[in-house]
Amino acid sequence: MTCKIYLAGPDVFLPNAREIGRRKCELCQERGVEGLFPLDQDAGAEATAASIFQANHALMRRADAGLFNLTPFRGPSADAGTVFELGLMFALGKPVFGYTSTSASYTDRVDAAFGPAVERDARRYDRNGHLIESFGLTDNLMIDEAVRKACGDIAVVGENGEEALAAMRAFEACLEMLCA
Amino acid sequence: MTCKIYLAGPDVFLPNAREIGRRKCELCQERGVEGLFPLDQDAGAEATAASIFQANHALMRRADAGLFNLTPFRGPSADAGTVFELGLMFALGKPVFGYTSTSASYTDRVDAAFGPAVERDARRYDRNGHLIESFGLTDNLMIDEAVRKACGDIAVVGENGEEALAAMRAFEACLEMLCA
Repeated sequence: MTCKIYLAGPDVFLPNAREIGRRKCELCQERGVEGLFPLDQDAGAEATAASIFQANHALMRRADAGLFNLTPFRGPSADAGTVFELGLMFALGKPVFGYTSTSASYTDRVDAAFGPAVERDARRYDRNGHLIESFGLTDNLMIDEAVRKACGDIAVVGENGEEALAAMRAFEACLEMLCA
Repeated sequence: MTCKIYLAGPDVFLPNAREIGRRKCELCQERGVEGLFPLDQDAGAEATAASIFQANHALMRRADAGLFNLTPFRGPSADAGTVFELGLMFALGKPVFGYTSTSASYTDRVDAAFGPAVERDARRYDRNGHLIESFGLTDNLMIDEAVRKACGDIAVVGENGEEALAAMRAFEACLEMLCA
């Protein structure tokens, strides 16, 4: 039976989401696995928040593993919907892998957007006085550690330009790890 | 047996996180439930990302329900760690409730930070060309819908100032819903 992989990410917000999804599913097929891309399910003008949730939730339950596009979205962290889904699939005990086209660490991204950081008692705070996690990880520690705990890994392949959010090169690297 | 409530949120990044946690736990106690605040477990200079993850994960598994501080953190969405934990507790089938001190909808927050929005084919895109979910919800639809599916609700009580991130008034309103 073909292994089914849920393809989570902010790709669904790209204007060419459908094409990105098709390309990622094709790459899966070349590797002998089946990609489940959320957009396939939620297309249609009559889609409601509830129907999209239900479709994505059902896809995640059907999937054998998850590949998560953790490229930062509207801030220094990964897309909130993607991170929710990571927590969900982690709790279901399914293997989860991450990938991103941003090579700067979370700490550096917060510094860039909310710095300059202030040091106090050997801890670093952003300009709003909020603690900055300084573990040199890809994102909030719950994200990185969940992927590690679930025997996955995070592929980082820097990419710029219009399609950076799709992180196609990091996706390929991640797929390679998953199929290794 | 006293009902145990996991108190998720970006509160742990406040400089007075310990005090905020204590106050939230006291409010829980007044209502006859036990608050489990993540910081209690991860304090200590020797804490690593892995040990904090493990402590929080264990607390969530012990908890009977979760209260999630969804106040936006470093962007228009809730804190990534908090959202991860929401997905995790949702998947475990535990009741989850949300609260926030920001009364603007997600759509309006994205407009403010990443607008002006462009309309195309009856859909709205931010200035980076990324689709804006326009359901008038509190955050990404996966977050709002999960809370609804899990029989919870999201308490919104606007608050400004230094402690807005703790959302203490919305927390009280949320606790009231949970204990109703």
